[in-house]
This record gives sequence, structure tokens and C-alpha cells, in this order.
Amino acid sequence: MRVLGVDPGLTRCGVGVVEGVAGRPLTMIGVGVVRTPADADLGHRLVAVEQGIERWLDEYGPEYVAVERVFSQHNVRTVMGTAQASAVAILCASRRGIPVALHTPSEVKAAVTGSGRADKAQVGAMVTRLLRLAAPPKPADAADALALAICHIWRAPAQNRLQQAVALHASKGRTA
Amino acid sequence: MRVLGVDPGLTRCGVGVVEGVAGRPLTMIGVGVVRTPADADLGHRLVAVEQGIERWLDEYGPEYVAVERVFSQHNVRTVMGTAQASAVAILCASRRGIPVALHTPSEVKAAVTGSGRADKAQVGAMVTRLLRLAAPPKPADAADALALAICHIWRAPAQNRLQQAVALHASKGRTA
Repeated sequence: MRVLGVDPGLTRCGVGVVEGVAGRPLTMIGVGVVRTPADADLGHRLVAVEQGIERWLDEYGPEYVAVERVFSQHNVRTVMGTAQASAVAILCASRRGIPVALHTPSEVKAAVTGSGRADKAQVGAMVTRLLRLAAPPKPADAADALALAICHIWRAPAQNRLQQAVALHASKGRTA
Repeated sequence: MRVLGVDPGLTRCGVGVVEGVAGRPLTMIGVGVVRTPADADLGHRLVAVEQGIERWLDEYGPEYVAVERVFSQHNVRTVMGTAQASAVAILCASRRGIPVALHTPSEVKAAVTGSGRADKAQVGAMVTRLLRLAAPPKPADAADALALAICHIWRAPAQNRLQQAVALHASKGRTA
């Protein structure tokens, strides 16, 4: 299972590709950051994010894309840019028929560190350990993108089992 | 000057095309709503918004696109969808090299009614009058999209004069 994690942002959009299945060692396939100039206008920045995400989808052909779910309780200006960058990432994947999953920051932290309130350093340290890297990926947005991909690989089996149970229950309901 | 106004939203994205110049009667060229099903997943909804906006750009070939500037002081859930739909509209226009302008709701209301705090009915009534329509466009999102386009046509000369003045000042500064 190959997953592209996206930590959305207009100035820095973290991207990381991880391959593996739950319960086995995971492999980092690629990591990086799509950047857009802060002084460019919003339209040009969104086009640059789209081109960047398209390149990552072309190059790595992920089967799933995991994007951080954006909440608006944070800083107002930042959140708008984050929501808009995430929309572009979700659009690029969906247009190709690649399933997109949204995970909250605390789900991601809990998945890789065991605590939903872990700090950036802890997430970076665990990503480094789980992917057997020589050093934590920089910047933090890149590490967060890898953490999103890991979170998705580990949560997917549980989600699939849940969906199967719901589907089974629904089909029993219909035949009863 | 032909302007496509977009009142962004995931459930209903208002779109309206107006042609004209400041100081002359304006003409409505088209009006409508791009809808996406509330029960579809976010990715599919964003793809549907993209396809809808692309159709309007193809069909009407606007020279400018005016999109409502999104603020996050409103309802949290709505604002995320609005920010994401606006990102798609801005992306579609920018990708084609069409200039995009953002206008705040109060700028739009002030432009068409004279008051930044006018209500929906007042905006609808003025849009109807200014475009010499038989009845207010429905739903309100469609009327708001037309108001955005009118606002852009009327504000553009002032914005252009300001930009020219700034450019002139900057060039004088360099040669001084």
C-alpha cells in the first residue's frame, strides 16, 4: 500500500510517500515540500500547489492520498490558506480517482507517538525511527506529511474492517 | 468588460456573468448555480465544482473573475467549505491566466446598494434593477454572484487608476 501524505499549506505544503502494510516495517519512498512565494497572488499560489501535487502524483503513483483535516479554531489567516491548499490537494487526487482520507492532527500524533498531544519534535523523532531514517526530515511540514501517510497505513485496516462490518450488517438487514 | 462573479459554496456555488463598463447600463449574460450533493464526499464535491466552473469559463469566456473574499469569523463548518470552493474557482481562472479579484461581502453590498450592511433582499432588488431583470434571480447565491460581477465592473476603474498612480510614483522614485 503506497500512500502520499499531504500537510497542506500555501507557503510550505509538506508531501511524503510511504509504502507498507500495518504490522510490517514501513519504507519512505519520497519526501519534500511544495513551496509558493508569499508575495505572489492567491491564484498563482494555488496553481503552483496544483502543479506541485500533480508532479508528486505522476512520479510516485500513490494508491491513497492522506490529507490533514483542517479546523478553523486556529489562526484565521493561516487557516484560510491551509483550507485552500488542502482543497487543491484533494481535488488533484479525486480527479484521478485516487481515494482521499482526511486525518485530524491529533489522530496523526496518536498514531505515530501514542499521544494525540505530542509535540513536533516527538512526531519527528517517531517518523525517523519508524521509517529508519538517518535524521528527522526537515522542515517539520515534510515530517508531518510522512506521519500522515503512516497514520493512514495503520488506520486503514481498522477502517476497512469497520466498513465491512457496516456493509455486512446492512446486507443482513435487507435479507432479514 | 465581461466579468464572471462567483459566490463560492459547496452545496450551492452562485455564478453570474455581467457585461458593461462603469457609467453605462450593464447587461446580464448568464446566471446560475453549480450544485454538489451534500452527502457526496469532499473530493467528489470539489471535482464537481471544478467541472461546473470550467463549463462557465468555456461558455462565457469572461475577461475577469470576481470571487467573494472568505472570512473565518462565520460558522466554522460552512467557512471551510466556502474557502475550499473558492480555492477551486480561483484555481480554474488563474490556470487560464484570467485575472481574479476578491471582494468582501460589504464591498459588494456597498457597491450595489450604497450600504455595506444591506440585507439579501436589498441586494437582490438592486441587482434586478441594475440589470433590468423581470424578477430577482433565485436563489440568493445567484443574485450575489451577479452583485459581485457588478461590484467588480464599478470598482475596476478606481483600482486601475490607483495602480497607475502607484506605478507612476514608483517609476518617478526610481528615476529621481
